Amino acid sequence: VKRAEAERMDAEDAIGWLRDHFVFDDPGLIYLDGNSLGRLPKATIAAVNEAMRAGWGSRLVRAWHEWIDVGQRVGDHLGKKLLGAAPGQVAVSDSTSVNLYKLATAALDTRPGRRVILSTSDNFPTDRYILEGLAAARGLELRLLNPGADGGIGVEAMKAALGLDVALVSLSHVSYLSGAIEDVPAITRAARYAGALVLWDLSHSAGAVPIELDSWGVDLAVGCTYKYLNAGPGAPAFLYVRHSLQTRLRQPIWGWWGQREQFAMGPAYDPARSIARFLAGTPPVLSLLPIQVGVDVLAEAGVERLRDKGVALTELIVRLWEAWLEPLGFTLSSPRDPARRGAHVSLGHAEAYRVSQALIEECKVIPDFRPPNVVRLGPAPAYTRFVDVWDAMDRLRKVMDARAYERFDPRPGRVT
Amino acid sequence: VKRAEAERMDAEDAIGWLRDHFVFDDPGLIYLDGNSLGRLPKATIAAVNEAMRAGWGSRLVRAWHEWIDVGQRVGDHLGKKLLGAAPGQVAVSDSTSVNLYKLATAALDTRPGRRVILSTSDNFPTDRYILEGLAAARGLELRLLNPGADGGIGVEAMKAALGLDVALVSLSHVSYLSGAIEDVPAITRAARYAGALVLWDLSHSAGAVPIELDSWGVDLAVGCTYKYLNAGPGAPAFLYVRHSLQTRLRQPIWGWWGQREQFAMGPAYDPARSIARFLAGTPPVLSLLPIQVGVDVLAEAGVERLRDKGVALTELIVRLWEAWLEPLGFTLSSPRDPARRGAHVSLGHAEAYRVSQALIEECKVIPDFRPPNVVRLGPAPAYTRFVDVWDAMDRLRKVMDARAYERFDPRPGRVT
Repeated sequence: VKRAEAERMDAEDAIGWLRDHFVFDDPGLIYLDGNSLGRLPKATIAAVNEAMRAGWGSRLVRAWHEWIDVGQRVGDHLGKKLLGAAPGQVAVSDSTSVNLYKLATAALDTRPGRRVILSTSDNFPTDRYILEGLAAARGLELRLLNPGADGGIGVEAMKAALGLDVALVSLSHVSYLSGAIEDVPAITRAARYAGALVLWDLSHSAGAVPIELDSWGVDLAVGCTYKYLNAGPGAPAFLYVRHSLQTRLRQPIWGWWGQREQFAMGPAYDPARSIARFLAGTPPVLSLLPIQVGVDVLAEAGVERLRDKGVALTELIVRLWEAWLEPLGFTLSSPRDPARRGAHVSLGHAEAYRVSQALIEECKVIPDFRPPNVVRLGPAPAYTRFVDVWDAMDRLRKVMDARAYERFDPRPGRVT
Repeated sequence: VKRAEAERMDAEDAIGWLRDHFVFDDPGLIYLDGNSLGRLPKATIAAVNEAMRAGWGSRLVRAWHEWIDVGQRVGDHLGKKLLGAAPGQVAVSDSTSVNLYKLATAALDTRPGRRVILSTSDNFPTDRYILEGLAAARGLELRLLNPGADGGIGVEAMKAALGLDVALVSLSHVSYLSGAIEDVPAITRAARYAGALVLWDLSHSAGAVPIELDSWGVDLAVGCTYKYLNAGPGAPAFLYVRHSLQTRLRQPIWGWWGQREQFAMGPAYDPARSIARFLAGTPPVLSLLPIQVGVDVLAEAGVERLRDKGVALTELIVRLWEAWLEPLGFTLSSPRDPARRGAHVSLGHAEAYRVSQALIEECKVIPDFRPPNVVRLGPAPAYTRFVDVWDAMDRLRKVMDARAYERFDPRPGRVT
C-alpha cells in the first residue's frame, strides 16, 4: 500500500471538509485518540464564551430560563440526529457512571427475585464496577461473559447465557477494547424473551456507528459525549429510556431536577412524568452546551457517511497491519470483518505500553494504550485523514524496526 | 436611614475593591441573587478559554495529565481557604444531589438497625427528596423537624429529637429559606453522643460564613459551588469526608474515578484509600475549573471580612425593613440576631411572587422568590454595595406604595 493511495482516498473523501470545523493547532500531530477525547470544534469556543458572557455574566440567574431544560433539549437533538430516538426519550445529565447506576438500579427494581446481572469481562471498567457494586448491595450475582475470538459476544452466546434468573443485561454496543459491535436488536429481543431488561452503553458507538434505538426496540441506554461527539473533557453523558417504560421506572437519586414541579419546592418527591424523572441535580452548563455543537457538526456529515469513512479508515489500518505489522508480531485484536467492527482498531503486542509511549514522545502520533497489551487506534471519521492513518502506521513500523520503544520505562503503577 | 449613610459604608468598606474582580455588564442592575447563581469573575473567562484552547484544543487527551486529579486539587484548595479542612478530605465532583446521595448512603450503611433519618421540613428540596428516596428504598423513616420561630432548629430541639434509633442527621448549615445558621459543632457533638452520623449541607454558607470542618469535628459535608463561590451555572459540587472515616465508608456508585488504580482497568472494584473513593465518573472539566478561580477571588478578601460585610449588609436590610416595610405588612422571615443569620434575608409577604416579578421586570432589582411567600434578598458580600441594598429596598417600598405588583400574573404552575 503506497502513501499515494491514501492521498487519493483523501481526495475522494465525501466528508473531508468536515475537518475544517475543528481546531488544529499542530498540523504535524496525528491524533488517533478521538475515541477517548474528541477534538475541539471551532464553534464550541464561541458557544462557551457566549454562555459565559451573555448568559451567566450578563443575564445572571435569568439565564436559567433558557437553560432549565437544556439537558432534555440537547438530549432530543442528539436523539434525533444520531441515536434514532423520538423526542422525550433522551436526556443529558451526570456522568456515564452515574447514569448507568441510575438506570441499572431502576431496571433491577422491576425484576425482584431474579438474581443475575449479565455483562462481559471486557466491558468498560466503570460499567463492570458499577454493576459489581449493585450486585454486592443487593446480593445478586454479576456474571461476566468472555468475548469470543473476534472480541464480541454475539447473539448465540447471549442466548445461551440468558435464563429466567437474569434480571438485567448490560453491554457495550461497541467494545472499548476490541471495537467489536454487538447486534443490539437481536440481543435486546433475546433478553426480552427471557424477561430481562437490557441497558446498552453507546459510549464507543454514538457518532461513529448508526444507531436506531426506537426501531431496535431498546429499553435503556447510556453513553458518553466526549468521545466521537467531541463535547469536551468530562462533558455530561446521556441516557435513553423508552417512552413506554418511563413511568414504570424510578431511579434511586431523588434529586430536585427530577421533580415534577421543581420550583414549587413542595414537601414530597413527585417524579416528573417524562424523561426528566431520570435527572438528579443541577447540570453543569458550560460543560453541557458543547454537546449541542458536537451533534451539530456531526449532523452536517450524517452518521451514514461517518460510518462509511470509519469503515474505510479502519480497513486501511487492517491492510497496513497485515502488510507491515503482522510480520513484526502484532496481532489484530479487533474483528477482521468491518461490519463487526466499530471505528477503532486494537493491535496486540507484548510491548504495547512502551510502543505507545514511543509513538507519543518521538513520532507525534497519539494512540491509546489499553491494558494489558493493546495499542488502540481511533481515527475519528470526522477529522482524520487517510494519510494520517498511513503516516501513523508507517511511524509505528519504524518504531518497531528501530526498537525505539526500548528506551522507555515499563508501565508504572498508579496507586491512589 | 439616609442613602448617604449607605454611601459612607461603601466608602469605608474594607473589601469594596473585590467587586472589580467581577463582570458588570449592566451597572444599573441590582443583583441580590448571588446566593442562587453567583456572578462571573473576570478571571474565569480566561481560565475557561485556556482550558479549551491550550488544554482540550491543543494538548488533547494529554491534558488529562493535569486534570486527572483536578477534583481533589480544587477540593484541597477550597478546603484550605474556605472550609477549614486539611488536605485530602475535600473533593469536587457531581452535583450536590448526587454527593448527598453518595455520602448519605455510605453513612446509613454503617448504622444498620437504626431506622430514622433526621432532617428539617425547611431543608432544601433536593436534600429532603434525596433522603426521602433513601428512606423509601431502605424502609427507614425520614423525620422532618419544624424550625423554630427564628427559622433555625437549634441544639436543644436537636438533642430532644436524637435517640438511639437515629442513623443519620442531615441538615443545612444555613437555611436556604430563612437564612438561619445552625450550630454545627454543638449539633455534631450531640449526634455523635447519640451514635448518629451528621451530614451537613454547606451550600448557603460556603464562602459567606466562617466554616471550620476539622476543628468542629464534622463527619460529612456537601455543598454547592455556584452560589457564593461564583463557579458558574451547575458547576460541580463538593464533598467532605473526615480522614478517619474515609476507609470505613463506601459509597454506592462504584465508578472508575473512585478506583484505586483507575487506568489499570482491572477486573474488580478496589476503592482508593483516599477521598478519591467518593468520586464516580469523569468530572466536567470546563464547569469545574471555575471553582478554582472562585475560591481564589474570595480568598483575597478572606472569609472573616466577607462575613463582617455580610453581617453589615443584612443588618442594613433589617433596619430598612423595620423602617419602611414592616409597616407595609412584610414580616422578617430570618433571624433578627445577625449572629444567627447567614448572608441573606428573607422577607415574608402574601404577594411575594408578584412583588418579586415587579422588582425584576420594572425596577432592575433581582431578588429570589421562594415558595410559599418569601422575597429572598442575597446581597453577596463579594460584590454587593451598601447603596445597592439601599436602592433595592427603596424600590421595593415604592413597588408597594404604587401597588405595582398588581399588574403581574399570579404564580403559574410548572408541570413537567
